[in-house]
Amino acid sequence: MNELQPVALEREGATADLVVAGGRVYCSNRREFLERDVAVVGDRIAALLEDADSVTGPETTVVDATERIVLPGLIDAHTHTDLQAVPERTVSGALASGTTSIVTETSGIGLLFGSRGAETVLERTEGFPVTTYLSLPPQRLLVTFEPARGGDAEVDALADLLGHERVVGVGEIDWIHVVGRESPVERLYERARGTDATIVGHGAGCRGESLRAFATVVDNDHEAIAADGVRERAANGIHVVGRCGSNRDDLGALAEAFPDIDRASVSLSTDGVWPDDLLEGFGMADVVRRAIDVGIPEKAAIDAATRNPAEQFGLDGRGVVAPGAFADLLVVDGLESLTVETVVADGDVVVTDGTPDVAVRDDPYPDYLYDTISVDLAESRFTAPLEAAPDGTVRAMEVGRGLVTTETTAEPAVLDNAADADGESDPDRLGPDPAADVLTATLFDRDPATEDRAFTGFLTGFGLERGAVATSVTWETPGLAVVAADTADAVVAAERVAETGGGFAVARDGAVVADLAMPVAGTASEAPLEDAVAEFDAVEDTLRESGVDIERPLLTLQTLTFPGVPALKLTHSGYADVLGQSLVGLEPAVERES
Amino acid sequence: MNELQPVALEREGATADLVVAGGRVYCSNRREFLERDVAVVGDRIAALLEDADSVTGPETTVVDATERIVLPGLIDAHTHTDLQAVPERTVSGALASGTTSIVTETSGIGLLFGSRGAETVLERTEGFPVTTYLSLPPQRLLVTFEPARGGDAEVDALADLLGHERVVGVGEIDWIHVVGRESPVERLYERARGTDATIVGHGAGCRGESLRAFATVVDNDHEAIAADGVRERAANGIHVVGRCGSNRDDLGALAEAFPDIDRASVSLSTDGVWPDDLLEGFGMADVVRRAIDVGIPEKAAIDAATRNPAEQFGLDGRGVVAPGAFADLLVVDGLESLTVETVVADGDVVVTDGTPDVAVRDDPYPDYLYDTISVDLAESRFTAPLEAAPDGTVRAMEVGRGLVTTETTAEPAVLDNAADADGESDPDRLGPDPAADVLTATLFDRDPATEDRAFTGFLTGFGLERGAVATSVTWETPGLAVVAADTADAVVAAERVAETGGGFAVARDGAVVADLAMPVAGTASEAPLEDAVAEFDAVEDTLRESGVDIERPLLTLQTLTFPGVPALKLTHSGYADVLGQSLVGLEPAVERES
Repeated sequence: MNELQPVALEREGATADLVVAGGRVYCSNRREFLERDVAVVGDRIAALLEDADSVTGPETTVVDATERIVLPGLIDAHTHTDLQAVPERTVSGALASGTTSIVTETSGIGLLFGSRGAETVLERTEGFPVTTYLSLPPQRLLVTFEPARGGDAEVDALADLLGHERVVGVGEIDWIHVVGRESPVERLYERARGTDATIVGHGAGCRGESLRAFATVVDNDHEAIAADGVRERAANGIHVVGRCGSNRDDLGALAEAFPDIDRASVSLSTDGVWPDDLLEGFGMADVVRRAIDVGIPEKAAIDAATRNPAEQFGLDGRGVVAPGAFADLLVVDGLESLTVETVVADGDVVVTDGTPDVAVRDDPYPDYLYDTISVDLAESRFTAPLEAAPDGTVRAMEVGRGLVTTETTAEPAVLDNAADADGESDPDRLGPDPAADVLTATLFDRDPATEDRAFTGFLTGFGLERGAVATSVTWETPGLAVVAADTADAVVAAERVAETGGGFAVARDGAVVADLAMPVAGTASEAPLEDAVAEFDAVEDTLRESGVDIERPLLTLQTLTFPGVPALKLTHSGYADVLGQSLVGLEPAVERES
Repeated sequence: MNELQPVALEREGATADLVVAGGRVYCSNRREFLERDVAVVGDRIAALLEDADSVTGPETTVVDATERIVLPGLIDAHTHTDLQAVPERTVSGALASGTTSIVTETSGIGLLFGSRGAETVLERTEGFPVTTYLSLPPQRLLVTFEPARGGDAEVDALADLLGHERVVGVGEIDWIHVVGRESPVERLYERARGTDATIVGHGAGCRGESLRAFATVVDNDHEAIAADGVRERAANGIHVVGRCGSNRDDLGALAEAFPDIDRASVSLSTDGVWPDDLLEGFGMADVVRRAIDVGIPEKAAIDAATRNPAEQFGLDGRGVVAPGAFADLLVVDGLESLTVETVVADGDVVVTDGTPDVAVRDDPYPDYLYDTISVDLAESRFTAPLEAAPDGTVRAMEVGRGLVTTETTAEPAVLDNAADADGESDPDRLGPDPAADVLTATLFDRDPATEDRAFTGFLTGFGLERGAVATSVTWETPGLAVVAADTADAVVAAERVAETGGGFAVARDGAVVADLAMPVAGTASEAPLEDAVAEFDAVEDTLRESGVDIERPLLTLQTLTFPGVPALKLTHSGYADVLGQSLVGLEPAVERES
């Protein structure tokens, strides 16, 4: 007899550890709110009772849910818990918004350290109040624009992790890497196939035959940004993950298509809540409320943040309020405001009156994750060779709508005396011309497993009028990206980022004027969230003072490398022509004859 | 790039192995019928195309589905594939009714041989056209009325099988064995917990606090026979498996409760189609049609036989028509008659114009499964001691409604000269008195791992006026059951069953007058289905000639041991007082004072 039964049977003397009493409890299998007391033993729900007085003893914690709604703990179906800040710093904010489980990429630590990084995230999130399920990072197996960083050993190491109880599948991969392409990641998919692993897709802009082909690979996707994209994914059997977070809010599109899709084939996610939004209290409860506000039926919105992702990712015992399930419970004031009052995670009360109270470890991460930036930062590396622009014109990226960068041409400045690694002058290089809206954009490869290589291209439309900004947060490839109006400042900013082991730095007139340390793998801050946000704001403010007027400049910087938002992107060896799926250089494309 | 993509991308020269063209295809994620051609490569669906001409080559098999509906292959969420007949004999019938996957108990072979039996079923059904998923047999770990047959080693052996890709969980267990009770099966559940294993319940008559306690153990249940039971299960988080098969049709109850439950929380099943019904063509397509006929919405009924069981049991790649999924497809004439015309299983056309055409192995089962009945059949063992009825009255089972047997009293005959094992006379024993509607009911333990024990009780209401009937098909416990109006004929019938290695035999006037061999584990026929049914009918006819007038006498015989249909049942050591959860003897219960 399991430990839940005595309470379920209301045996003499059997008492629950916790009772959530008097509320209207959402029962997914009935799609109804039932008046029940929820009795909890250990980390599990023992019974839904009409009156739990019979199992309430002197040691029982009682949460009064009178005139309140009791929901299953919310599940964020797609997020990035190791990016921007370590999960230890974000867990309280997530709980306060009702998130008790997440399915996360390990796109920060995993980007540089692959399977080893994923293992560390698993270890750090063991016993976390927000139960953390991982999808494995595939980035080191991609070959689209550069050779794969990992080989068979990495495939095997990742595949071996598929057996871990909190590893649910293989993490997001942009469609351009797998549609019509051979890559080592195929072997990981083969290993994953036949297990219960869920394959996460990133199908931004994918449609038609490409989407059909992508559907043979992935199980779900969170990149439907228009109603047609929602319908097309569903028609191809792809579970649609709606997104509302720091990057985008696509729930309007989801709501528009909702009458045309099965309500069990949809989940909700944030795709990442960055520290500033988290500090303002944004989280999954807001996502659910937003879904309801834009027209998704209440119960369907709740299901999409609870049982649907639990089923899509095979999160056993999550997403429902039912006997035997994990005791992840929210008490909210009602479905209109969805204000989270109490949160129970794995049987523990972790939020009371809206205030989270959890203890998480604060010991350092393993040594290997610190001081990960070791590249030669000679000033000449932030310039391009003169011969790249025989007629004075180079291919350049132009900041477009959202995080897209499109292809354009630019006329860089011709520099004198940019010093190279040996301090020798290297005259007549190409560099930024901020007065003409031409900046350099340099990407260093900071992967210790590869050679120290870098590429300097050009960027327009960013608006920086002076100084430089550097960051080690570069999506999908482990890099150090520097955008500069001044190459000497580029060195200063990059050196600061290297010194702090990662983060952001802005330099002006030879000095750092703002920075934010992200020492864990160069992609996550360890500071208290308030401090990190203050530094983040300072970096952004400094950029704005320097002329940058785009909406989220730090996100634009991070995604200069990210082919998921095309079209012309930075790699360590040239530009990525995302739609052409090829590497291109500085020489502008030849105009096609009409 | 996987092998599906060239077809999905309609690449030059890429051809599908199979195309199902021109139909209206049920798309679960859209809950809609879409006009699509289904292109198949190998055993998988490569793409849903608006026109598959581009991928149709000279080698492509084309199934014309013009003006037809294309559905995912049907999944029987609960059946007994190794009971009555070996699966090799029933697979064609299942396919003809649209079943392409089953979740089966191994309650025949597994009953006597536990984990070893389950391994044999897995081995025999490898590569079967009906994909056969197993829930593990827990019967050897039960202690409710007798000591457990298996110990820790059996728990471990079963638990190790949880890693097999076609083992989906732990098989059905009657609630009386686990509610409020300690048993070795708990250890199996502990091992299963934390894996993705699904626990199958058998909650016949379970309600209130018992159902709440049962809900802490099981994930689904197929024993809701009234609408309230459906609602109560759903409210306790139990996935409801509706049943319509040879034993029962409970779909009316399901339909009545359907508006009150979530449509994704329901599956459909047969719970076993016995050879006679199978031969008449009954199967899952009929179950779906019946569900629609009684009022379950069409798409919900289809989902309940496709995607819902696939999700409940974690049958990866089953239950949907979508790229990457297994190519299990039905072409039906329409939703009204649901006549199955074509069936594709794992990419192979296995039914054409309603006629199945599959080759299955016909080599013998492993030796250990044959000749499994070795018990001492001395006539005295079919009688009871005189002292069991000091006042001439004994406790007896009475055949009730359906398969229920209730408690009653009876006055057996006093026999002379029943011979014991040594041929010595054993005067003054209690035996049958058919004129007074009193029969003996004897159960031998035929488990080679236990002692040769037997119990003879009494049965009324069965109607047998002469002779005896014996069977080795005894649910939930490995036995040889004999119901007799004549103890000499009891020996003759039992000896025939022992000789044939199992089955049924009817004896009259010292000779066998009808029999049906079930030599595999004593519970399954190997004969062609037509022959088995003819023999089955002959046995039943002979019983009717001998006065038996209950509805399904052979099923009543099989379930004399089965506590899932209470109330007084046979064990090897006495009667099982199912509701009292205790063993009781022949002495009648003392009347309680009022």
